[in-house]
Amino acid sequence: MNRIILLVLLLQPVVSLCQKADYPIQVVPFTKVKLNDNFWLPRIKTNHTVTIPASFHRCEETGRVKNFEMAAAKSGKFCTIFPFDDTDIYKTIEGASFSLSLYPDKGLEDYIDSLIIKIKNAQEPDGYLYTARTINPDEPHHWAGKQRWEKERELSHELYNSGHLYEAAAAHYQATGKRNLLDIALKNADLVCSTFGHDKKHVAPGHQVIEMGLVKLYRITNKKEYLETAKYFIEERGHFKGYDPNSKDPWKSGAYWQDHKPVVEQFEAVGHAVRAGYLYAAMADVAALTDDKAFVTAIDSIWENVVTKKIYVQGGIGAVGDGERFGENYELPNRTAYNETCAAIANVYWNHRMFLLHGDSKYMDVLEKSLYNGLISGVGMDGKSFFYTNAMEIKDGQPHKDMETARSGWFPCSCCPTNVTRLIPSIPGYMYAQRENNIYVNLFASSTTNVELNKKAIEITQQNNYPWDGKLVFTLNPKAPQDFNLLIRIPGWANNQAIPSSLYSFEHMSQEKVRITVNKKPVEFKVEKGYAVLTNRWKKGDVVEVDLPMEVRRVVANPHVMDDIGKVALQRGPLIYCAEWPDNNGKAGNIILPDAVKFSAAYRNDLLNGTTILTSEAIAFVIDDTGQSVTTVRQPFTAIPYYAWAHRGTGEMMIWFPKKITNLDLISR
Amino acid sequence: MNRIILLVLLLQPVVSLCQKADYPIQVVPFTKVKLNDNFWLPRIKTNHTVTIPASFHRCEETGRVKNFEMAAAKSGKFCTIFPFDDTDIYKTIEGASFSLSLYPDKGLEDYIDSLIIKIKNAQEPDGYLYTARTINPDEPHHWAGKQRWEKERELSHELYNSGHLYEAAAAHYQATGKRNLLDIALKNADLVCSTFGHDKKHVAPGHQVIEMGLVKLYRITNKKEYLETAKYFIEERGHFKGYDPNSKDPWKSGAYWQDHKPVVEQFEAVGHAVRAGYLYAAMADVAALTDDKAFVTAIDSIWENVVTKKIYVQGGIGAVGDGERFGENYELPNRTAYNETCAAIANVYWNHRMFLLHGDSKYMDVLEKSLYNGLISGVGMDGKSFFYTNAMEIKDGQPHKDMETARSGWFPCSCCPTNVTRLIPSIPGYMYAQRENNIYVNLFASSTTNVELNKKAIEITQQNNYPWDGKLVFTLNPKAPQDFNLLIRIPGWANNQAIPSSLYSFEHMSQEKVRITVNKKPVEFKVEKGYAVLTNRWKKGDVVEVDLPMEVRRVVANPHVMDDIGKVALQRGPLIYCAEWPDNNGKAGNIILPDAVKFSAAYRNDLLNGTTILTSEAIAFVIDDTGQSVTTVRQPFTAIPYYAWAHRGTGEMMIWFPKKITNLDLISR
Repeated sequence: MNRIILLVLLLQPVVSLCQKADYPIQVVPFTKVKLNDNFWLPRIKTNHTVTIPASFHRCEETGRVKNFEMAAAKSGKFCTIFPFDDTDIYKTIEGASFSLSLYPDKGLEDYIDSLIIKIKNAQEPDGYLYTARTINPDEPHHWAGKQRWEKERELSHELYNSGHLYEAAAAHYQATGKRNLLDIALKNADLVCSTFGHDKKHVAPGHQVIEMGLVKLYRITNKKEYLETAKYFIEERGHFKGYDPNSKDPWKSGAYWQDHKPVVEQFEAVGHAVRAGYLYAAMADVAALTDDKAFVTAIDSIWENVVTKKIYVQGGIGAVGDGERFGENYELPNRTAYNETCAAIANVYWNHRMFLLHGDSKYMDVLEKSLYNGLISGVGMDGKSFFYTNAMEIKDGQPHKDMETARSGWFPCSCCPTNVTRLIPSIPGYMYAQRENNIYVNLFASSTTNVELNKKAIEITQQNNYPWDGKLVFTLNPKAPQDFNLLIRIPGWANNQAIPSSLYSFEHMSQEKVRITVNKKPVEFKVEKGYAVLTNRWKKGDVVEVDLPMEVRRVVANPHVMDDIGKVALQRGPLIYCAEWPDNNGKAGNIILPDAVKFSAAYRNDLLNGTTILTSEAIAFVIDDTGQSVTTVRQPFTAIPYYAWAHRGTGEMMIWFPKKITNLDLISR
Repeated sequence: MNRIILLVLLLQPVVSLCQKADYPIQVVPFTKVKLNDNFWLPRIKTNHTVTIPASFHRCEETGRVKNFEMAAAKSGKFCTIFPFDDTDIYKTIEGASFSLSLYPDKGLEDYIDSLIIKIKNAQEPDGYLYTARTINPDEPHHWAGKQRWEKERELSHELYNSGHLYEAAAAHYQATGKRNLLDIALKNADLVCSTFGHDKKHVAPGHQVIEMGLVKLYRITNKKEYLETAKYFIEERGHFKGYDPNSKDPWKSGAYWQDHKPVVEQFEAVGHAVRAGYLYAAMADVAALTDDKAFVTAIDSIWENVVTKKIYVQGGIGAVGDGERFGENYELPNRTAYNETCAAIANVYWNHRMFLLHGDSKYMDVLEKSLYNGLISGVGMDGKSFFYTNAMEIKDGQPHKDMETARSGWFPCSCCPTNVTRLIPSIPGYMYAQRENNIYVNLFASSTTNVELNKKAIEITQQNNYPWDGKLVFTLNPKAPQDFNLLIRIPGWANNQAIPSSLYSFEHMSQEKVRITVNKKPVEFKVEKGYAVLTNRWKKGDVVEVDLPMEVRRVVANPHVMDDIGKVALQRGPLIYCAEWPDNNGKAGNIILPDAVKFSAAYRNDLLNGTTILTSEAIAFVIDDTGQSVTTVRQPFTAIPYYAWAHRGTGEMMIWFPKKITNLDLISR
């Protein structure tokens, strides 16, 4: 139990340690949430039993661990591809640390300790830690400069490695109480903070993440230099003189790194989407801790830009493959949609922090959309097959060269698998939050949670079959009757909003309303910032029931999105659906969904680890074997949740369906 | 008759004036060819009666003439858009000069003289002539620098204007014997030659044409500085240090201007296609006049590159709209095919010179393909409606923003209309050539021509109905019996070669052979460099008859051309065909042409000023009004010559037809 108490203390550092400015809303830490649901718990278990061991195995097998051993010995030759390969170990340790607090595992803990020794041995005396140079400083990795930090802006990723080290160290310390990794991180952070700053060496990190990492170290140690350096790294952006401000090439203008303008002058999401998401998340952190209103103004604008112009209907961001980056406004092509899994994860980090800053459910709506769709699509149900990109459509005859059509094991650049490894076990931490006398319920999954509100313990259980069923049952068990507000997120989609933006909308307004009962009695409720606010003197055994309308909804896009004109997508609850070839006569790109089509939803225990499918009758084109005759037929139509695609071989998959056809492109290859 | 004699002298300056190295083959000048055919003569007449007057009218109406008046007065404000608008007057004078020698017209000649006075008055005392600066040197056009020539490399087009002035002056002098425009040109050329050179001011002209123009002035005056400066301008390319040689952006690497490498190191066609064509043509001129073998090596390689990898099936070049430039090898997209009319004209200039250099028919094959297809498509049969770009396909539902779908009058940038104006009346000049004891017959059209071979006059008449009919009748009327070789071009297409390259081929080899009779008796003939060589002691009234097989041929593209995979185009004689909406049930993008389809060809007097159409039965997709049902039907298929499209309103047009369908793209807008 000591471990849990420590975690609680550390994840609420504002209250327990610093008593300074921080987010007005505090997270109920994931360790306080005991899932017993059928959606997330199996994934977290698979992550623990399959993904984490496989990930460590690959770190060994590919030479990532050996890089640390060689750095310790100061001999050999860096034996993997990228200088940031160190971070796969850090990220897996981070995921394993989260997982350890759910599944205590002495063997895993010992193994991590053995890795930490190797990491420690690879650290140079002054704290520098970067195997791509330390192995042989005379011949560092060709992405690194001859001198430390020399190519940090461009390619070296020295500070990126440090950032993931800090994130891992914070999680490991919080999960285990051990300082062995933390001390390595702090030693490195002290070097970084003494090297960089407004009155020291200048650089805007080439790939953000150290900013969030430093904030975590600050929260643990209360050492103000960490926060100051995090803020410095953010403020340094936009001041490098070597770019061409007029270039449309994001590498030449600096926009690729969000380095084209000072961050407080940035109001549009541009450049590499993972870098961007990490930056915006860090800006939220630093804004909360330093009350920086200019940062808030910037990220508020950028967020509006993303959700009204730059996010796919399945929650993916980073539309453009060339640079893994945000496109222009409304540039959301389906055939070449890049949607890196890591970008979805970055978007979760950012939106969670936006919620903690503003207390508005719209951020959790975006988080939920990403989490249930374009993020978990990135990891197969077996826990060991991954997507780096998350396609919006796969059609025979014209696959795009940059798009993945099938899951694979680790990629040479394995950022996404290890990022998934650390994200999945942290999901319970996004479910609840609290502020003064308010408890926020953000995500829905059967679970038991212990919240301490005004120093009084309250147990909350959720019983539901979400996302398949909209019936949510909450049982409140305060130790003694207690006045507080229960704020239950009413998802935008339950309220006829496809996403809180002008980018997508539902074609038909639902007449079904969200209904809430308390102890079986219907209650009127007000909605504030997207939350149903239930004020009561709650007593043990009080039952709150919420009914979210779960009809199938037809989504249409803003007509500025060229690729989606005249098309419809399908949503039920938080899930975006797709049609995949095994369910639709071997194809999917040949389907049209006229306005009149009605859908049935049915849970299928036998399919894709259990899932609700949508069925209907659609129109499909059928080309005969000669290639010289085509007819339309009515045929059964089946859609599965988008996240579940690509588990049954390679073939066509579609999210957007034409409602009618105005023309055809004849494809002859 | 004086005028004609002068022209003959001037167009064969090598023989008559210089006696130096020049092309081994000499042109039989266009004034010696009297057309009486139904294909070209009506176009030349329309050019004379409609296009030239309309063009001068537009020069007046738009302010292009006023610019010269203001420059003379040194007051006012440049009142058109581009600094190269001066050239529209020069190019129209050039076209009118050619035309005047066919249709003497005192009124037109006087009008041109009045324009020449305005041009002369606009010329500065030292010969500088560029209204965009002279009107107000303190505030020149924003594309021009503060000083003369300062922005020549980038945008000013000062030397481009000079080049077109020289071309116009040479033509006007040759057609009229008057020196009024020539003297203006020579004064300007003297300034240019005293300003630029290896030991003077350096610049590679921003838009080539002056090189060809200087060569023409050299041929008239025999003044070696003109030739030297032309050669200098060519050799100067590739030596500017301000480019980024690694950039893929053709503006940054200099490739846009063919300025990325010294010309003798250029072996691939790159950059702006008109600039490129003018450069390669000028390199041929200078190579012929100076025996520069390195120039020849370079343009031979570039020519191979174009005809094997960068030319459309209708003869167009410059596939990429962004930069009006050559794409990568095999980058020949249909939907966005740019194919500027001026680029087709430049290609004619270049290929004609390649023929004069090498005496191979393959260059005339390319010239013929361009001339009969992607070049004259650029001017409507009314002589006053134009295409700047020449599309490869027009489909409803997905027009590309940069592609023209209908002809229009003059464009603001009116390079193409005025370029057409000067090209059309010069066409008879491409029909014949001679070398020692050989007469080359390159193009086929009913006509009477007088050739002087070894100082003896030979009249040759052609009687045919080309390109509709492959039966060609030549009657030879030497004054007295004479030994010479008649070299008749056997078009590549008549010999089972779609174009002399590996880029396109015919799907089926024809069994029909070219047959030739002399005085009705079949003769065996040898083919050398693509010419049937008929050696004889020819006497008055000898009749040579050539039968070119005119079957309809199915063209397929090299499989590297992604857009044409599985598709077929149609050719008959030199003409590429297209299907246009008025003939095919209002659509064209819905047609497939299976292998089994057989075509009939029939001349239709009532259609499109008289044309041979192809008919057959094809398969077409039909979408019903609801947009939810599609069927395939067999329907009559009609194709018209590509050059004749877009005369009956706006709608679909296709050149490449799928042979069968492997998939469909459903278009919903």
